[in-house]
Order: sequence, then structure tokens, then C-alpha cells
Amino acid sequence: MGNGMELALCEAQNAAQRGEVPVGAVLLGPDGTVLARAGNRVEELHDPSAHAEMLVMREAIAARGGQRLADCTLVVTLEPCPMCAAALAHFRVGRLLFGAYDPKGGGVEHGPRLPFRAEALHRPEIIGGVREREAALLLKTFFQRLRTPGEGAESAS
Amino acid sequence: MGNGMELALCEAQNAAQRGEVPVGAVLLGPDGTVLARAGNRVEELHDPSAHAEMLVMREAIAARGGQRLADCTLVVTLEPCPMCAAALAHFRVGRLLFGAYDPKGGGVEHGPRLPFRAEALHRPEIIGGVREREAALLLKTFFQRLRTPGEGAESAS
Repeated sequence: MGNGMELALCEAQNAAQRGEVPVGAVLLGPDGTVLARAGNRVEELHDPSAHAEMLVMREAIAARGGQRLADCTLVVTLEPCPMCAAALAHFRVGRLLFGAYDPKGGGVEHGPRLPFRAEALHRPEIIGGVREREAALLLKTFFQRLRTPGEGAESAS
Repeated sequence: MGNGMELALCEAQNAAQRGEVPVGAVLLGPDGTVLARAGNRVEELHDPSAHAEMLVMREAIAARGGQRLADCTLVVTLEPCPMCAAALAHFRVGRLLFGAYDPKGGGVEHGPRLPFRAEALHRPEIIGGVREREAALLLKTFFQRLRTPGEGAESAS
């Protein structure tokens, strides 16, 4: 699973290079095989729902002919937002590993804490804070550069 | 806007014909033009996130080159689930009209009530219960047929 986070961090870095908010995700099958990997593609696809988590869940389930992801692990560099946290239940993701906590925008350990609500259809096993500092540093650097005059996200290297 | 719900109900009926949970949605532009219309395509696309609301939001924003939907109205036959309710904020939908209330699975007026939370990024104008009975009857009939032995959703006519 450590390998999964390594790949997710790589996808996050690639996302930053494309001017996207640097979040990356990997979907691991029951034996640890990588079923899908992606970074945010919100800007590129003109799709505010194209978060890394949504992309890998959709790709992985399509590859499995619609079979839900109860035996799979979603690895993502940032605590999922409420949209993605709710989608985790629709896809029946078995296990969630995430990197940085997101007190402002997170929906798993923060905000509505969707998987822990009484009416939740499904609750994955949840492990947060995996390589938290690296994941948080990527985001921090990205937003600092965005705020620096004359140096947009496009020039992040 | 009444016309929007008429179309959304039609999309919901079409979804039932395809064996999908009968929910339909329409995205109306500032002048009431239909930017996108869709029914659920969860089964067909092997994609548990392919709710009618997600499909129309994604289609409409792509057609507008990424411009957020603050001047648009999302019309949907059922109260959105938490995933779709959270997505409404990401897409900055200006107004939400929905049909039937969903006390069990809804995320707008029920459950986490996402648009009303303090940390919500954006709250659309919300009007629920529009042609509620018709929308609810579609769902009720669909699930009754599913439960009748020898008469699956495929044979719904």
C-alpha cells in the first residue's frame, strides 16, 4: 500500500505540472495491482467533478465490468471532499488510505464526516495521514506559487 | 421552469425503460434554454456516479467551456443524494428545483443537508417538492415491479 501512495504522490506532482490542484489517486485491486491511477483533471476536462478519486473509481469499476470495489483500496494524497466521500459509498470502496487531512474541505474526518453518519450506506476502512507531510507540502507549494505575482501554476516545475 | 420538470420526468421514464432507477434531470441556462438533459445511466455505463444530475452538470459546463453554472437551474425529479448535493457546490449551480423528497438517501433537505452546512462553499437557491407526487410515483412503481417475481425492470412498459 506504501507503493500505492508513492504512485498517488507522483500523480499529484504531474497534476501540478498541468496547472491542476495537486491531488493524485490510485485504485488498488485485492492483490495490490494498480487498477487505475490519475491526478485531478478539473481544468483540463472543464469538469469540476473530475477529482482524482472520481476518475480512478470510474476507471476501475468500468475495467471490472461494473463490479463494485469492496475488495479494493483507494489511495489518495488528500482527504476526500464530501462529493468524493459520498461517491466512495456508491462504489462500495473497501478501504480508503489518504495523505493530508483537509480541515476546510474534507468530508471524511472533517465537515459532514459522511462515512460515519448513521444513514451511510457503506463505510470503508479508513486510514488517514499516510505520508501526510509530503502530500500537504505539494499543495502548499502549489498555492504559494499561485499567489506569487508573475508565477502562475503553469510555470511550476 | 415547469417545462424543465416536464422534461426531467420524461427522462426519468426513459431511464426506467432502460432498467435504471427512474430519476431524470435537466440543466436550464439563464434564459431557460435546455443545456443538457439526462436520466440515470448507472447500469448502462457501469458507473455508480452516473446519476442524472452529474451527467447534466458535466455536459452543460463542458458546452460552456468550463464556465460555472451560477446563472443556471438544475431541475431533477428526486432530491439529490450527498454526492450530487456536494457536486452542486463544485459546479456552482445557481438554483435547484427537485421533485420528490428522499428522507432515506437525500443529502439536501435530509441526511447531511450539505448546502446548509457552515463550511459549504456555495448554496444554490433550493425549491423542493415540485410535482412531487408524479416523481415519487415513478420510483414507487419501478421498485414495486422490481419486487414482483417474474417481472423485472426490463419488462416495465
